[in-house]
Amino acid sequence: MRAEIVSVGDELLKGQRVNTNAAFISAALAGIGVPVGRVVACSDREDEIVSVFAESLQRADIVLVTGGLGPTRDDRTKKAVQQLLGRGTELNQEAYQNLAVRIKKYGMEMSPSLREQAMVIEGSQVIPNTRGSAAGMIISCGEQFQNHYLVLMPGVPSEMQAMMELTVVPSFAALSETVIRHTPVKTIGIGESRLAEMIVDVEDRLPEGTTLAYLPHAAGVNLMISTIGRDRDVVDRDNRSVVEAIVRTAEKFVYATSEVTLEETIAAMLSCRGVTVAVAESCTGGLLASRLTDVPGSSFYFLQGFVVYSNQAKHNTLGVPEETIKKFGAVSEEVALALATGCLEKSGADFAVATTGIAGPSGGSPEKPVGTLCLAIAQKNSADVLSRRLVLQGDRQQNKLRFTEAALREFWQCLRQA
Amino acid sequence: MRAEIVSVGDELLKGQRVNTNAAFISAALAGIGVPVGRVVACSDREDEIVSVFAESLQRADIVLVTGGLGPTRDDRTKKAVQQLLGRGTELNQEAYQNLAVRIKKYGMEMSPSLREQAMVIEGSQVIPNTRGSAAGMIISCGEQFQNHYLVLMPGVPSEMQAMMELTVVPSFAALSETVIRHTPVKTIGIGESRLAEMIVDVEDRLPEGTTLAYLPHAAGVNLMISTIGRDRDVVDRDNRSVVEAIVRTAEKFVYATSEVTLEETIAAMLSCRGVTVAVAESCTGGLLASRLTDVPGSSFYFLQGFVVYSNQAKHNTLGVPEETIKKFGAVSEEVALALATGCLEKSGADFAVATTGIAGPSGGSPEKPVGTLCLAIAQKNSADVLSRRLVLQGDRQQNKLRFTEAALREFWQCLRQA
Repeated sequence: MRAEIVSVGDELLKGQRVNTNAAFISAALAGIGVPVGRVVACSDREDEIVSVFAESLQRADIVLVTGGLGPTRDDRTKKAVQQLLGRGTELNQEAYQNLAVRIKKYGMEMSPSLREQAMVIEGSQVIPNTRGSAAGMIISCGEQFQNHYLVLMPGVPSEMQAMMELTVVPSFAALSETVIRHTPVKTIGIGESRLAEMIVDVEDRLPEGTTLAYLPHAAGVNLMISTIGRDRDVVDRDNRSVVEAIVRTAEKFVYATSEVTLEETIAAMLSCRGVTVAVAESCTGGLLASRLTDVPGSSFYFLQGFVVYSNQAKHNTLGVPEETIKKFGAVSEEVALALATGCLEKSGADFAVATTGIAGPSGGSPEKPVGTLCLAIAQKNSADVLSRRLVLQGDRQQNKLRFTEAALREFWQCLRQA
Repeated sequence: MRAEIVSVGDELLKGQRVNTNAAFISAALAGIGVPVGRVVACSDREDEIVSVFAESLQRADIVLVTGGLGPTRDDRTKKAVQQLLGRGTELNQEAYQNLAVRIKKYGMEMSPSLREQAMVIEGSQVIPNTRGSAAGMIISCGEQFQNHYLVLMPGVPSEMQAMMELTVVPSFAALSETVIRHTPVKTIGIGESRLAEMIVDVEDRLPEGTTLAYLPHAAGVNLMISTIGRDRDVVDRDNRSVVEAIVRTAEKFVYATSEVTLEETIAAMLSCRGVTVAVAESCTGGLLASRLTDVPGSSFYFLQGFVVYSNQAKHNTLGVPEETIKKFGAVSEEVALALATGCLEKSGADFAVATTGIAGPSGGSPEKPVGTLCLAIAQKNSADVLSRRLVLQGDRQQNKLRFTEAALREFWQCLRQA
């Protein structure tokens, strides 16, 4: 069984919206062993939608569509299906009830354009919308399309996601005969080429049906090991053997072999040991605290953060001596150290991580170019204070992100050794 | 002239990577009046790449490709082009020099697989790679494809972006005969249906060639008004008249008619008036400070942030009375007010914005469900303190984002009235 995804909407072709829906749907289908052959984004024009649907239905058993089901005039998906299949629409009572309840909740009145959202293609199975008003549909397209399926869902991510989880994935899971297993190997602190050289022997001896993909990101490379087959035990065994071989070879750089983030890995280490952290940030401007508090339950180990942007704030709030700032500059390992020790003291945490740097676009100098980061980590009851100076490359937001990744990486390595 | 985008890479079909490249390329082409007809993501398989290229080259004058130019084995784009066009490859000296310099910089040795990145399709125009090692190419595909163009670029976003800006956009700008004008109207604090009702008269009378798209996001709706035509003056006039009509009708909710963010709008207001802000965050965990410091030059108006996650930090760092926390709970308008006034005092800023709430997934109660946000804004030399309590819906990260958007929105409204 093979799927394709069609994302309908001019906004995707004008660069006004990134197609996150396709990634979500692909990942959900991967989980039930349904490979996605292509993803096509097309315009709201009815004739264009008709062509794209017809082409995808020839190649794929299931075509999952997002977009074009809303109440506004640029929503043409249902019209296109009517034209393609020569079918009419009918009012679905369940969808109408859901719509009526939502309309009432927002204090609005039913109107013809709103009512349209409860109209479905004749003979389709309705996908209830638990988070919005437009009904979804699973449509068997008849003999002209070898009984392949069209699945229509709204473009609003939360509505589509709920439909996938509650209805679409369970419906198609039963029909899939292929087993796919994906395992990520998440690394940090090593580039793509160096990692590729390191694991060349593993890559030379991949079992049949197993592939290895490199997914570089801001501060490292994630690997994805995918195995496809018909026998679950063989698929699991082959996949695991490759993952284990990579972990053995590149251990120093691997922080996870599951879909967890670096901050979640750090969270688990802190929670496990019952220790706490606080942060003092200049150049990362709150992003480091934000990443650490993205993890549910972070209040158990994250005490507080200080975003000390101005020199005065560094001095007044965390006691960084004005002389240190004057002598070494606000962006210096010395100030990073003073921030970390001040933060440790003020917060009472077990660890303090501090960043100071130049995110740009201005503020650089020959000695301290844009992209310079000084970071420090201090630890309670320990004279050992770690500091680092790095120079990274990127625009302001990339630098903030990379600075934050670098701080998380150093903190992770520090916790690993502790 | 019409373009299509092809994004090559299994990771896009497995949901392991979101296709941000396609959005970037589309936006860049929109700027020079080249509409994008379709975006196709396909696998790394050579035969599949060949089919997709052949189909797109029939429909579009330019096919822009990302991915599959790297040094690893899953990089098959050049092989596919060789097969499709029946051409060989040749070493490009300029690309080889660039590669050699980069390899030396990283202390590596030249190898056959690295050298492959300086090999280009015979007869192609090389696109220099200023941020990486793989050469890009503009290839005129000959009579079999009506001399349509294939543009090959790496999948690494920063490398592709530099190639687009420095070479691809300037090359094709000269060939385009159509004028397109896109103007965003960015709103906050109003939903899609309500906004659609409000501007129904404008939408009923759109000039020919002008379209209106709704782009809902976490905390509001952006509109995109697009006008296409051959005469620049007419296109500009029609586009502007629609934008002005919408702004007149929905003024209360419009914060920008250009590609600026809400935080940039706030930044401009603060800079203009020479006033400063500090923030005190609990539930937003640093994200509010991070958003405000995403803007270049934020050190002029952003003094500092306090991420006071624990109750103790709220008390010790910002002087929130323990009694207030005990009596009203950490998530209450009373604590939000105390956070704002404490932050104002400690920082010396002109404005202080404070958030406290329940991002979830746990910590909710019947009176204060997950999604509850209390926020407050205090102002120097003013007894007027604003506070709000809202209940929003989402998972932890969505809530953090929506809480932050809500705080920015309230602050923007407050600055507007001040």
